[in-house]
Amino acid sequence: MREALVRPGLISLAAGFTDNPSLPVAETRDIMDAMLRGKAGQPPLQYGTTAGDEELRVLTARRLAQLDGQSAKAKAYQPGRMMITHGSQQLLYILTEILCDPGDIVLVEDPSYFVYLGIMQSHGIRGRAIRLESDGINLDHLEHTLEALKKSGELPRLKALYLVSYHSNPTGITTAVAKKAAALKLLRRYEPAAGHRLYLIEDAAYRELRFAGDDIPSALITDRAANRVIYTSTYSKPYATGVRVGYGILPGPLLAAALRVKGNHDFGTTNILQQLIIRAITTGAYEKHLAKLRQRYAKKAAAMVRACRDDLPTGVNWTEPTGGLYVWAKMPARVKTDFKSRLFAAALRQKMIYVPGNLCYCGDPTRRRPNREMRLSFGSASSSKIREGIARLGRALKKVL
Amino acid sequence: MREALVRPGLISLAAGFTDNPSLPVAETRDIMDAMLRGKAGQPPLQYGTTAGDEELRVLTARRLAQLDGQSAKAKAYQPGRMMITHGSQQLLYILTEILCDPGDIVLVEDPSYFVYLGIMQSHGIRGRAIRLESDGINLDHLEHTLEALKKSGELPRLKALYLVSYHSNPTGITTAVAKKAAALKLLRRYEPAAGHRLYLIEDAAYRELRFAGDDIPSALITDRAANRVIYTSTYSKPYATGVRVGYGILPGPLLAAALRVKGNHDFGTTNILQQLIIRAITTGAYEKHLAKLRQRYAKKAAAMVRACRDDLPTGVNWTEPTGGLYVWAKMPARVKTDFKSRLFAAALRQKMIYVPGNLCYCGDPTRRRPNREMRLSFGSASSSKIREGIARLGRALKKVL
Repeated sequence: MREALVRPGLISLAAGFTDNPSLPVAETRDIMDAMLRGKAGQPPLQYGTTAGDEELRVLTARRLAQLDGQSAKAKAYQPGRMMITHGSQQLLYILTEILCDPGDIVLVEDPSYFVYLGIMQSHGIRGRAIRLESDGINLDHLEHTLEALKKSGELPRLKALYLVSYHSNPTGITTAVAKKAAALKLLRRYEPAAGHRLYLIEDAAYRELRFAGDDIPSALITDRAANRVIYTSTYSKPYATGVRVGYGILPGPLLAAALRVKGNHDFGTTNILQQLIIRAITTGAYEKHLAKLRQRYAKKAAAMVRACRDDLPTGVNWTEPTGGLYVWAKMPARVKTDFKSRLFAAALRQKMIYVPGNLCYCGDPTRRRPNREMRLSFGSASSSKIREGIARLGRALKKVL
Repeated sequence: MREALVRPGLISLAAGFTDNPSLPVAETRDIMDAMLRGKAGQPPLQYGTTAGDEELRVLTARRLAQLDGQSAKAKAYQPGRMMITHGSQQLLYILTEILCDPGDIVLVEDPSYFVYLGIMQSHGIRGRAIRLESDGINLDHLEHTLEALKKSGELPRLKALYLVSYHSNPTGITTAVAKKAAALKLLRRYEPAAGHRLYLIEDAAYRELRFAGDDIPSALITDRAANRVIYTSTYSKPYATGVRVGYGILPGPLLAAALRVKGNHDFGTTNILQQLIIRAITTGAYEKHLAKLRQRYAKKAAAMVRACRDDLPTGVNWTEPTGGLYVWAKMPARVKTDFKSRLFAAALRQKMIYVPGNLCYCGDPTRRRPNREMRLSFGSASSSKIREGIARLGRALKKVL
């Protein structure tokens, strides 16, 4: 991102920024104008509560139950189990603080979201990578990993399985609901040996950025006792990244701990942003905006895939995203993609950048860290910039091959 | 605060909320209206940078140099040394994360800001309390404490001295600049024995809420190498508590570490809030609002002090605040003020609450934790509610005495 700012003419397919022209400028102005009037305009400018605005928690919980096709009365969707944070990122951070001690282990997809891997690393938490298939983690590998941890006596250090379950960052993969249920069952089976609960953290940040087709229920529907799944998501990506409002559903004991930490972080999420999201939802502006956004991203994703087809040499493979912000591309054998690679340097000379794939792999000692992939974002660049960016990548690749 | 919400008719002099009627509703609406238009309205709704908006850092650094009577070119006030956070609270949290390991020691005023004490406690950090005088910490006691830590071999665990240096929470005390300079000199003298830098954290959250008289320079002017003072402050209290924008000046190596943690917390402070503050400053709305706020709080502080004089029995002492949000009151001997005390129960029956003073004292093993004081806030209640609240406290006291 720093590169993108300093090199004129550089096309960044690296940053996970969203699309500037589609930001809800007029919608937000209208909401602010209606909201900031007289006495009713005072609460948005005052402190809120640590857990977050109750109306927002009620609306969000109801929305989530609806997405999952469940009754809003179901235990898993009670607003009292929900907290609001400055983006779901903050919740992932707080979860790490309350769940893990240095030396603990978290299972992650291979590859996984690199900022979460950064949080883990900064807290001294070890990752174990679970192989991915087109519909989520490989369950055999999950079982094999759990069994190996049990045999090595490390299972008591295991705390959670972390999945970016919808249109994943970085791969775009969505996890099948049956896989989430099966993973949860496997975790349960190993709890006695672990000596404590093993949580499934479901990071659904990209859930709403689905291009088409039916939504897939979250793991909450498979967690009958509603005490093993932590669900995190956000309004920032679907509404506006400059409005940092995330949320999560947590089992009771974890929620209490998370709220204590949240109180120490910042007393609670900025109230005016929460009120803005409430009004965006209740006026219908949110859904309308989301529908537009999905179309827009679907178009840009298609432009990127088409450009990959047209301009990348044979031997390169890429995913065709069904939502989210990313294409995940794999280079031919022996072409490295890391910051120090010949390809990255060549791409930079062509004035384009990408996120090197190796950043998205945790340091699992049981496998070599892959280094021939890249994350390409179609979020922020325009369709023509996307085409030109991929063409430049194609030229860089040809120089390197 | 939960009590305040559930008991109808209860007067809370506990919460550090600011005054609702004085919140800048129309000002914020006007700014949003001007800001959220066309293409220029997009950046506020997009991600910003981890350190915070550059214009805001430039404006803030310049403002700070001005308050300190220094050239904006002085090393200490370079915008590159500044970061923006979700309230100064978040910065205090991040500082604790980067400076301290469990078992480390931080020196704090006795009493100090209880949420900071909570952050320390949750990170396993031990406090050592430095006695207070009307113009800040007792320097002899600071020296004595440093010497005692040196003798006990604990000095290598000491990391910082934390001062709420302006109109302190909870005492209202402002630290004289000479004391800040002397404290810094003392810390320097003990650095060789500590084996590392000893920082002065100056929490200036209430600096701008001064009722009258001249401002006092910050410790930055006494830190010639600009590498021992960490200055934290906020726009939230002076502008609107629902707008969480804090900031800090940090020595270089600390800033780099703090930015890494901030990136993991939330990538950077919500952009729309930063843009709002920029516009509030550049349009003059901020200064105008601040002037009004000071007058208003001065009046409410006077109302509280008058009520204390009129309605509290002899033997009770209190401070006369020159800024900030709090009166600090000391009960007659043998009257306890903690949550389980007879006085707290009697006050609750009279339908008023305060913050028990014992919460503001760290668990220092070298002294008993005092338990006959209370923090009374004139921030959120109206003048008439303040008078009535103090009258109720007076009645509760008479029942207990």
